[in-house]
Amino acid sequence: MAAGVNRQIILAARPEGNPRQSDFALRESAIPEPGAGQLLVRTLWLSLDPYMRLRIAEGGQYYPPVPLGDVMIGGGLSRVVTSNHAGFAAGDCIEAYTGWQDYAVIGGAGVRKIDPALGPLSTALGVLGMPGLTAYLGLIDVGRPEPGDTVVVSAAAGAVGAVVGQVARIAGCRAVGLAGSARKIAYLRDELGFDAAINYKTQEIGAALDAACPGGINVYFENVGGAVAEAVYPRLAKRARVVICGGVSQYNLVAPQTTVSNLQNILFTEARVGGFNIFSYEARYEDGLGRLARWLAEGRLKYKEDVVDGLENAATAFLRFFDGETFGKLLVRVAE
Amino acid sequence: MAAGVNRQIILAARPEGNPRQSDFALRESAIPEPGAGQLLVRTLWLSLDPYMRLRIAEGGQYYPPVPLGDVMIGGGLSRVVTSNHAGFAAGDCIEAYTGWQDYAVIGGAGVRKIDPALGPLSTALGVLGMPGLTAYLGLIDVGRPEPGDTVVVSAAAGAVGAVVGQVARIAGCRAVGLAGSARKIAYLRDELGFDAAINYKTQEIGAALDAACPGGINVYFENVGGAVAEAVYPRLAKRARVVICGGVSQYNLVAPQTTVSNLQNILFTEARVGGFNIFSYEARYEDGLGRLARWLAEGRLKYKEDVVDGLENAATAFLRFFDGETFGKLLVRVAE
Repeated sequence: MAAGVNRQIILAARPEGNPRQSDFALRESAIPEPGAGQLLVRTLWLSLDPYMRLRIAEGGQYYPPVPLGDVMIGGGLSRVVTSNHAGFAAGDCIEAYTGWQDYAVIGGAGVRKIDPALGPLSTALGVLGMPGLTAYLGLIDVGRPEPGDTVVVSAAAGAVGAVVGQVARIAGCRAVGLAGSARKIAYLRDELGFDAAINYKTQEIGAALDAACPGGINVYFENVGGAVAEAVYPRLAKRARVVICGGVSQYNLVAPQTTVSNLQNILFTEARVGGFNIFSYEARYEDGLGRLARWLAEGRLKYKEDVVDGLENAATAFLRFFDGETFGKLLVRVAE
Repeated sequence: MAAGVNRQIILAARPEGNPRQSDFALRESAIPEPGAGQLLVRTLWLSLDPYMRLRIAEGGQYYPPVPLGDVMIGGGLSRVVTSNHAGFAAGDCIEAYTGWQDYAVIGGAGVRKIDPALGPLSTALGVLGMPGLTAYLGLIDVGRPEPGDTVVVSAAAGAVGAVVGQVARIAGCRAVGLAGSARKIAYLRDELGFDAAINYKTQEIGAALDAACPGGINVYFENVGGAVAEAVYPRLAKRARVVICGGVSQYNLVAPQTTVSNLQNILFTEARVGGFNIFSYEARYEDGLGRLARWLAEGRLKYKEDVVDGLENAATAFLRFFDGETFGKLLVRVAE
């Protein structure tokens, strides 16, 4: 890469159904200059996450969509190159929504300084970052696990799901994970210590849930929606809690998203279903990260990364979310 | 009716789809004798409620189904004829699950003594009984209304819905009701003071909700499910609450009840959806009834009864729930 060039991946077309490579394009522009109170940062790691599909859709229910021709949004881990902000110095590592590009100019708002002592830098985008916090806070605050509960999590081998199951076990619960390959199932059971793991592609989900959850499902942590959700609701235990955190199976649907014609299982069980958005929990990030870091140091929390090299491969990597081919936290190594 | 005869309506067949007259039959048997600690009571009023449909279904998700040939379950208001129980005396008025029959022998558990000073006796089955308490406690405890909220309730002219809207207004909220006839719409607006009322049979529900709830729906009190629910979820406001109290549109479905393929609106809004079952709130009945009675005495709470005469007409009256033809609390006057 020539000095002075900022490579950017832009949204070239708004996808209908499954996103394609051609919905994204590489653009080269000049490295921007930071103004007063701003930072110039160099992207080291880019985080890829399913929620990004929502941000490139027409909609607008969640957050405003990325405009066509704009740099793709996304969180990343960067090093400060130049700082005109009293809170940051050149060389600092930060996490922020810097987008799919080599360099970004940002203000100080929403920027999290990373302590490299907590773990490898890339963990700040995974187990010690938004996915880890999402799992921890979503499970604790909406799922309210009690010792002895059976906690079911979908997309269990993903960056969020894997932490959900492990924190559930730390909280004294049984953890049951759903995932889509034999390798992932073995990983959940043998490496992460899940009490049971179900392959939703090869097993009959309902029967497998019956076997894994003989007393019903006390907590369901929802990352996928669709067929898994349909099998879960009739198996909720009395006073179950459901954390609606994501719905990756639904993000590519072209038809208007259907909602709910029958939520009677919620009535029967007096269940509590709650939507979870990590951005409403900023006041609890520090406390949550401290707990996750301690469990990581103690070996009670494990993680797996799925690393792709090169910004130019970000789009190809992103598309893997929609065929179930990711395994661990999906990251793009952009520099260093 | 000859003295010594106890007329009983029994479940003669388990309905598939809409219940029919032939699913019920009249049987005459002897008036039973109360044993030690028991009461013989004479039914005065019988309460008819949509939940009864669930109790005659195969299922078993909610409560065990009424066995074929057994007396139909249901709550009623009775006078004590003979008491072998220290807590009750002949002449007392009580509310209990005495079933569709002239006389019943019951123990003291689950029996509520009625204070005739609170209001007309029949109100103990409506606005000052389970429907009123369901509306009040469901709205307050699961719906958590805040002043300025917009509260939407389906089946708003029913025994529960009418109280929900009126209590919402007492709590400083705007009340929007859905009902299925011009008479009911006029009643909600002109007599009960709802801020808006929508005829779901003649209006496009989504557009009508948009007009009535320009800031979105803060609280939805669910009594029906189906098409109304589908229109409501995409219009939930940030941090909305949904009370799942009933789903009368779904009770007659023969196909296995579908659950949910997409609850993403709950994620987007960080909504909280909760199932409500009045029987979990016994500790709060007395307090709730005291509040409802006060509002009734002050004229802030109005009610309407739909009275059918004669036990022999109970089944015909019950069937009216499923064509939307009830208007007000449905009661059967059995005696006096």
